[in-house]
Amino acid sequence: MSRSHHTDPFTPLAPTPRQSAPAPALLTDLYQLTMLQSYYEHGMEQPAAFEFFVRKLPPNRGFLMAAGLEQVLEYLENLAFTPGELEWVRGCGMFASDFADRLERFRFTGSVHALPEGTVCFPDEPLLRITAPLPEAQFVETRLLNLLHFQTLVASKAARMVLAAPGRLLVDFGLRRAHGAEAGLLAARAGYLAGLHGSATVEAGRQFGIPVFGTMAHSYVQAHDDEETAFEHFARSHPGRVVLLIDTYDTEAAARKVVRLAQRLSADGIAIAGVRLDSGDLAAHATRVRRILNDGGLSGTTIFASGGLDEWSLEKLLASGAPISGFGIGTQLDTSGDAPSLDCAYKLQEYAGAPRRKRSEGKVTWPGRKQVLREYGADGRILRDTLTLEDDPLPGTPLLGRVMDAGKRIGPAPELEAIREHAARELATLPAAVRPLTLPGTVPVQVAPALTRLAAEVDHHTG
Amino acid sequence: MSRSHHTDPFTPLAPTPRQSAPAPALLTDLYQLTMLQSYYEHGMEQPAAFEFFVRKLPPNRGFLMAAGLEQVLEYLENLAFTPGELEWVRGCGMFASDFADRLERFRFTGSVHALPEGTVCFPDEPLLRITAPLPEAQFVETRLLNLLHFQTLVASKAARMVLAAPGRLLVDFGLRRAHGAEAGLLAARAGYLAGLHGSATVEAGRQFGIPVFGTMAHSYVQAHDDEETAFEHFARSHPGRVVLLIDTYDTEAAARKVVRLAQRLSADGIAIAGVRLDSGDLAAHATRVRRILNDGGLSGTTIFASGGLDEWSLEKLLASGAPISGFGIGTQLDTSGDAPSLDCAYKLQEYAGAPRRKRSEGKVTWPGRKQVLREYGADGRILRDTLTLEDDPLPGTPLLGRVMDAGKRIGPAPELEAIREHAARELATLPAAVRPLTLPGTVPVQVAPALTRLAAEVDHHTG
Repeated sequence: MSRSHHTDPFTPLAPTPRQSAPAPALLTDLYQLTMLQSYYEHGMEQPAAFEFFVRKLPPNRGFLMAAGLEQVLEYLENLAFTPGELEWVRGCGMFASDFADRLERFRFTGSVHALPEGTVCFPDEPLLRITAPLPEAQFVETRLLNLLHFQTLVASKAARMVLAAPGRLLVDFGLRRAHGAEAGLLAARAGYLAGLHGSATVEAGRQFGIPVFGTMAHSYVQAHDDEETAFEHFARSHPGRVVLLIDTYDTEAAARKVVRLAQRLSADGIAIAGVRLDSGDLAAHATRVRRILNDGGLSGTTIFASGGLDEWSLEKLLASGAPISGFGIGTQLDTSGDAPSLDCAYKLQEYAGAPRRKRSEGKVTWPGRKQVLREYGADGRILRDTLTLEDDPLPGTPLLGRVMDAGKRIGPAPELEAIREHAARELATLPAAVRPLTLPGTVPVQVAPALTRLAAEVDHHTG
Repeated sequence: MSRSHHTDPFTPLAPTPRQSAPAPALLTDLYQLTMLQSYYEHGMEQPAAFEFFVRKLPPNRGFLMAAGLEQVLEYLENLAFTPGELEWVRGCGMFASDFADRLERFRFTGSVHALPEGTVCFPDEPLLRITAPLPEAQFVETRLLNLLHFQTLVASKAARMVLAAPGRLLVDFGLRRAHGAEAGLLAARAGYLAGLHGSATVEAGRQFGIPVFGTMAHSYVQAHDDEETAFEHFARSHPGRVVLLIDTYDTEAAARKVVRLAQRLSADGIAIAGVRLDSGDLAAHATRVRRILNDGGLSGTTIFASGGLDEWSLEKLLASGAPISGFGIGTQLDTSGDAPSLDCAYKLQEYAGAPRRKRSEGKVTWPGRKQVLREYGADGRILRDTLTLEDDPLPGTPLLGRVMDAGKRIGPAPELEAIREHAARELATLPAAVRPLTLPGTVPVQVAPALTRLAAEVDHHTG
């Protein structure tokens, strides 16, 4: 998608990426600190391997899209306790007297293997593995889950919207009902990499170079004594990007005002690029508004719709033939409304060279350092995935790659545009059975014999 | 609740509140900026009144609990564009050349009326009103919604858990699956003010003085060659707060190890305060574990449970008589799992002295500056609420009060403990019909004649 198309309803901003302040190291669960102290006290600092994976898909989901890795790597590279945090640890009365001294030197020195962001994946497959001295690999759990879970959740939701509305302009409008500042910002990022075209969130444009889009609010119309004056004021203030919100009072009456206004504005060379609908029966309004605009000579003025939309309503609107060329998607995207969380975990798979496994009811894990091998059919679609140990020479393309070593990222961070292109290629590999929005199938993930043998051995030795 | 009870499984930390860096001013929707420029250009800077309210309750909800006001006031007091942000606005090519100069001077100079945090409330009732010059009142919309929506969502969810599990220890465990850093932090705050006893999130303890709780993870147990050694290591590292996670392999076998370990540790004066269950049939395991502990002389060792819990599972576990004294509640609290968003809005109600109203289908608003008047029965429970204009002399206790004037907070910020006590008193005023978890009733909100008359007048004059 081009970054500058002045005839479009919404004009993206130029990207000038910038990093925000990192979250505090104390943004973690208390038990990470109590366990850390105990690991230090008992000399348990051998290498550990933890893996992050999703246990099962939410209802109506056939696949996941991995996202959030860049923020994880940034977290790991910058992780350090500030003097204020150390002072708090010293003063809180919960830890051994020398614990804060250990924390002062605490850095992440381990390695990371991961799926590239934008890769489609399935339950039980590791999205990321951390290999590091046990205290480090343990401590990073909370924030790592917090980052990977959310962006994977939103990218997976956004990918469904992309599949439901091919060729339509899709814009994230969700900041206001996202769960806080970071959720709004990272939802814009996850949505964009999954294939949306941009976001209304200005800071997402500034930090990530994501195209930013916007129209006007009902309050803008209401603040004027009449609707047509509101439209004209806005058009004269922003002649290059006139998109008018027409449902504040009476949608079709407003469409006729738009036609009248367009005639007056054309003398000054100002065109009305689009109108936005935000309430009522969007398909019916769009059809009537399209006719009014066309009859008024505004066949080039596009219709954009918003208001509680999700992937199902996109699919339904498009199936009805509604003449809508773009959609603002807010709450249902940023909160992943039908499934606001994934059943995911970050589990110890190996310590000091020995494979480990949890056997809690309903939460059994596969031990060892794992790899996912993917096989494709002649049509380029995924045939099957195999979950196995890292060094198992089975056929298939290995999906996890090393991205960090000794606490430092390997190579430059990929551009967000490149991640977005990878995601588009990945969506094209999804088998037809996985694509329906409702009750989709999923890709079979077979567990290799090497892994089942190892699990049996571990069970024999632990408990 | 006492802040220091050393015989408890979880020891709260001393509060040392601290403010985090404010979110960037550009964490907003693009249209706020485009509208702002247009308001400036057309001299629309008269006073405007906007109100925040929830349109309707999610399924299975009978009430809301207002929360997030403190973060809104902090935002309004500190709102300013940084030099870096102004530079970006100047360089992005979307705004008039003098717009950034106006933004440089931009501050919030208005007033705020609001429900105190912790107040129970109902659809259509304003939780907050902003009165300020139109550009200011307009611009703050996005972040104000982002803050008020989320904490009100989580406090309302947490209040249901408090009602479902009276007298039990309830702790927020949700950071890892909260939607980003701020969501985790503010969910801890919203949950605590609604009546939870604390959070696992350390930063919530540091910033808000919320009691912080923690146990151990499965990985701690797995990293040891045997479970009993893991238990002993942890107990010796944290002798004052021994809570052992016993479901990593075989729950009842682990409970028997706890009994053996307790005998060894008692020689060193270390007691096992509690055990935690995190999987399987929690009621059945708790009953069997309780018997094992009691038979082993550990009748003072409490049982704490976690694992995908929500208010319905709390109610069911307690109805079954399960011997569980506390619960860790994570994902379902921090994401408000059954209803991850509220249908809420921030709408213009008055501009330049004239009342305003939106008439979009399904989204009609009541015009004017409003007040909620609450009437109570002899039992202290809410009888009814009346929604009316600010100066209407009808009976009832007015719920909205002025908290900010000319951009400055009136009086000191209330202590979080005081908010929490107010919330507990508010929950006690809920009528019985509103309390069931499933298909509850709600409190009737009657619209006063003054308001319906005003709405009719507005409809007559606008459009």
